[in-house]
Amino acid sequence: MGQTLTEKILDDHLVEGELEPGEEIGIEIDQVLTQDTTGTMVWLQFEALGLEEQQTELAAQYCDHQTYQFDFKNTDDHRFLRSAAGTYGAHFSRPGNGICHNVHKENFAAPGKTLLGSDSHTPTPGGLGELAIGAGGLDIAVAMGGGAYYVEMPEVVNVRLEGELQDWASAKDVILEMLRRLSVKGGVGKVFEYTGPGAESLSVPERTTITNMGTELGATSSIFETDEKTKDYLERQNRGEEYVELKADEDAEYADEVVIDLSEIEPLIAQPSMPDNVVPVRDVAGTEVDQVIVGSCTNGGYEDVLPAAKMVKGREVAKSTDLIVAPGSKQAGELLAREGWTAEMMAAGVNVSEATCGPCIGIGHVPASDSVSVRTFNRNFEGRSGIEDDSVFLSSPQVAAAAALKGEIVDPRDLQDELDDLDAPGVELPDKYDASKADLIAPDEAIDDELIKGPNIGEVPLKDPIQANIDGEAILKMGDNITTDHIIPATSDILKFRSNIERLSEFTLSRVDESFATRAKEADGGFLVAGENYGQGSSREHAAMCPMYLGIEGVLAQSFARIHKANLFNFGIVPLAIDEETYEKIEQGDDVAIVDDVAEGVESGQEEFTVRINDDWEATATLDASERERRILTAGGKLSLTKQQYEEESGGAAPADD
Amino acid sequence: MGQTLTEKILDDHLVEGELEPGEEIGIEIDQVLTQDTTGTMVWLQFEALGLEEQQTELAAQYCDHQTYQFDFKNTDDHRFLRSAAGTYGAHFSRPGNGICHNVHKENFAAPGKTLLGSDSHTPTPGGLGELAIGAGGLDIAVAMGGGAYYVEMPEVVNVRLEGELQDWASAKDVILEMLRRLSVKGGVGKVFEYTGPGAESLSVPERTTITNMGTELGATSSIFETDEKTKDYLERQNRGEEYVELKADEDAEYADEVVIDLSEIEPLIAQPSMPDNVVPVRDVAGTEVDQVIVGSCTNGGYEDVLPAAKMVKGREVAKSTDLIVAPGSKQAGELLAREGWTAEMMAAGVNVSEATCGPCIGIGHVPASDSVSVRTFNRNFEGRSGIEDDSVFLSSPQVAAAAALKGEIVDPRDLQDELDDLDAPGVELPDKYDASKADLIAPDEAIDDELIKGPNIGEVPLKDPIQANIDGEAILKMGDNITTDHIIPATSDILKFRSNIERLSEFTLSRVDESFATRAKEADGGFLVAGENYGQGSSREHAAMCPMYLGIEGVLAQSFARIHKANLFNFGIVPLAIDEETYEKIEQGDDVAIVDDVAEGVESGQEEFTVRINDDWEATATLDASERERRILTAGGKLSLTKQQYEEESGGAAPADD
Repeated sequence: MGQTLTEKILDDHLVEGELEPGEEIGIEIDQVLTQDTTGTMVWLQFEALGLEEQQTELAAQYCDHQTYQFDFKNTDDHRFLRSAAGTYGAHFSRPGNGICHNVHKENFAAPGKTLLGSDSHTPTPGGLGELAIGAGGLDIAVAMGGGAYYVEMPEVVNVRLEGELQDWASAKDVILEMLRRLSVKGGVGKVFEYTGPGAESLSVPERTTITNMGTELGATSSIFETDEKTKDYLERQNRGEEYVELKADEDAEYADEVVIDLSEIEPLIAQPSMPDNVVPVRDVAGTEVDQVIVGSCTNGGYEDVLPAAKMVKGREVAKSTDLIVAPGSKQAGELLAREGWTAEMMAAGVNVSEATCGPCIGIGHVPASDSVSVRTFNRNFEGRSGIEDDSVFLSSPQVAAAAALKGEIVDPRDLQDELDDLDAPGVELPDKYDASKADLIAPDEAIDDELIKGPNIGEVPLKDPIQANIDGEAILKMGDNITTDHIIPATSDILKFRSNIERLSEFTLSRVDESFATRAKEADGGFLVAGENYGQGSSREHAAMCPMYLGIEGVLAQSFARIHKANLFNFGIVPLAIDEETYEKIEQGDDVAIVDDVAEGVESGQEEFTVRINDDWEATATLDASERERRILTAGGKLSLTKQQYEEESGGAAPADD
Repeated sequence: MGQTLTEKILDDHLVEGELEPGEEIGIEIDQVLTQDTTGTMVWLQFEALGLEEQQTELAAQYCDHQTYQFDFKNTDDHRFLRSAAGTYGAHFSRPGNGICHNVHKENFAAPGKTLLGSDSHTPTPGGLGELAIGAGGLDIAVAMGGGAYYVEMPEVVNVRLEGELQDWASAKDVILEMLRRLSVKGGVGKVFEYTGPGAESLSVPERTTITNMGTELGATSSIFETDEKTKDYLERQNRGEEYVELKADEDAEYADEVVIDLSEIEPLIAQPSMPDNVVPVRDVAGTEVDQVIVGSCTNGGYEDVLPAAKMVKGREVAKSTDLIVAPGSKQAGELLAREGWTAEMMAAGVNVSEATCGPCIGIGHVPASDSVSVRTFNRNFEGRSGIEDDSVFLSSPQVAAAAALKGEIVDPRDLQDELDDLDAPGVELPDKYDASKADLIAPDEAIDDELIKGPNIGEVPLKDPIQANIDGEAILKMGDNITTDHIIPATSDILKFRSNIERLSEFTLSRVDESFATRAKEADGGFLVAGENYGQGSSREHAAMCPMYLGIEGVLAQSFARIHKANLFNFGIVPLAIDEETYEKIEQGDDVAIVDDVAEGVESGQEEFTVRINDDWEATATLDASERERRILTAGGKLSLTKQQYEEESGGAAPADD
């Protein structure tokens, strides 16, 4: 039987397990990436492992979230990250050089390689045939130590694209259509493999918009086959020699198939406050818009900003509306500036900002109260923009620029009727992406050979090995689709403590219940209770590390998001699945006790545990964990386990440098 | 006897008093400007006055400090300011359009006019012959109501410039030389009038760098005569018709004269943490530099950024050093982008940011701990950059760019020896400042006709009329040169409460004593004690409003900075001068009682008051106040007084619209 492309790449990198959906596999990681809000903890963990140099083919540390540097803690983080990259042999991308996914795509992503990144949008370079997966920071630290990455073998779904996009429809609308059809849970446990004549018609930047936002489907990754378009893109990036032709076998068997006719795609928009709340733009036309932002890892490339620039050139942004453009990378910014587009955008009234992803998580350009913001980003979870009760719509750059010109949401096809010299901009690649690499510091150019830790750079918290008896209060009961933005908000006033778990943990779940952190600290251990899809969204491991630091020992949820579940294991918190009836019956404040010997049960492979509530009633909770995950839980977390393993392998010392 | 230029303009605008140094005069105000951190309170005060439209020739509201909008309160402030400008007939400059002083210079500043601005660097357009004065926001509100502005007639000092600047010396070095010679107190009660062949040799942008930073000398204003260079500048700005030739009479008598030979000026730098701590750059050469920022109202113009751009073009910023360029205006940014300089800077590794003055007051790009930052700004007061114990140097763009290239402070003449193809860039004006005005919304284009107040927009606090008996604790004793940055810090976490005095007052003097606000609120009334030059720096009236809100009734200081003293009157706080002996003897916590009937004494013109300390010893304190200022104190502040006057004039109603 033939293989899918995903299976081929996994097969090439397999170090443990079998390629059976649902089975845990261990794969070798070629490349890793980290960014500034997750990277500090990754490097602190790497330091804790005691290694002298990172072991992958290529590690890259980016500074992209906190680049406005609102607080010295941000700037201290950047300096620490530069020193860590220098000390341990990673590339360092300076603040202002752009968003990790964009810069990685431009400089390092390569067909057939595996990439692990401590950011949930790591799958972006799937658009050029790299198998890229987002993970918790600790998994990155372990991969940098030469360890395999373990993941449940996903189902591979064929997304067959037919036809071609019409004027004003864009790659963003394709992934919005996927979200409309499949919802934010529709990709859990899956890799989407895009094939067909429609896929061939898309340029690499369009493909990466789709693979990037596959994350919002909950997918493990998304990937396109490589072809002439891939080769062409790499050549324009002066990396033609890295091209490899990669196709699924003709007789590959997919777990499922989705068919989309690109010629039927029309401009779409995700309404507040979930990326799958998708409707045709015309359904919400006329909504007044206060702010528009073009940028992000989804739509911040040269090829994304260019259409917006063409649309506003010679026109003026509505006086009622602020249009901010934050290019995804310095490369994009430099090319746009060199070709005169930056000047044209400024002339039209655009506020051209730094290459940053900050505003996507509420760092800069927070919307005003009771206002509407249209953004080309990938997430519009409530409050993520930096203000509660926000009203954030997600769209393509074309739809965003149209909204900025008219001051209200409008289908650009209808705007075209009003402004008869408005042409559909299409997608255009530069002949060559000839831009400076001055902001990338290669390992052999490193200027630091030891870690520089400012006063806010804290310690890595560790947990004791798992106990036999786990009981405590159900300290918080939550609903469905709780995101990691709920668990640890990413706004700038909180994000600055990402390197300082003691301080950061005070904000844990504060957006759900302000008293939670205080109550959790006061309780001696305890549980979280949640509905479906607990922990969706960003990969931030702080969403597991902080509850652990506060004493949470288990989460009872109807289902878990993939990356967050892995993070729970990694930090020694037991993720237990419960059924809907149990979820409905259990109340916040209830006493929860696991009746079984948990330490023994975890170690022995026990799947069903009996949970006793208020000494009154019982329910069954399921631990769906691989042997490896059970070893991690038993050790009290992955860092403890990995340290143990190093000590066993090397008779007490850290392994040698190479 | 002939008149100085300052006297001529004042004479033209005089509505009360005589042009005798030290006498209070009232002048008519032609133009006003407000920015986003002081403007919200100005418009709330204007609203409290009950007028329908602002009455000056031109009012302009800028958004420049909080343009990164890292909190919804910033964005709400901007929306409120747009609505206030629209409602009351002011021009509105959108966030991202640039710094008030730069945009005003480019678009509105005109020879012979008077300008009052709620920002201490308002004197900037003195470089093209406008008499521009910084004031508290309440004075702006009153001027917008058609009222005169009252100020002590300054001494006019002739700064005679001879010779011409040599390669690598710049206008910034001229004003740094003034600061080196005269100190941050050297300009108190003075206007500096720049004359002589050296003055004629300077372009308008160079002149405005000097007049801008005259504020750091404590000067009331600084001004240049107008000439062909002024005419030429206005023509390039497409405003040639606004040119007026303005000269001092040949027999004008100046109170004093300072002579500077420009040909002897060498590159200078202000060391941490005071703008007058000036030395030749060579004295501190070799200091490693972590961060360099080019921008601000002092050196953020096209003509300021261009030399730095030329220096870095084709080179790379040191890998150890971050170079951020924040143009002073969108006009500058657009021209730099259009001519390709933005692309060249990006290629060299520059992080090109928005047009903002944020970083100057710690809003964005806060330095790392224990790091050195070289900035082309005007102030380096300790902590102003957003981190305590900062180490901020002030220099010209040339010196800043040299530091960025080498990674350490270096005299650019010495760097030229190292890099033999480095040419001194000189100063170059564009043929025409042809840039868009899309971000300026004129009164007749206004889109709001009522105020839009977000939840953080508070009330204007009012004080009762002055009492007969004033006594209380000396709640805080401070040293010399306490700045308004000490009194109300301007960092982003605090600035966002500028429109909310109740919340903001909690941070009053927190940088001197964290317990102050709590202690002040607990005490029932009380005093502040300070040394020389109390209240220097920014014009922010919040530095008087917040102590007033906390119950402070008097300040005993050896001397007061001009704008802050006016603000104390305006908010009903009695500023009393004490001698050094009294200052030394009085202790924090002492009981202070004014023995005289204060209400009667203030009203009757009494200058000397007896202060009794701890019922133990007595000292004399002097109230140096005009009749007008006494009326203000008596009424409990200027807002109360002005409201009273309106009611008297119109028999209870606010005056008619025009």
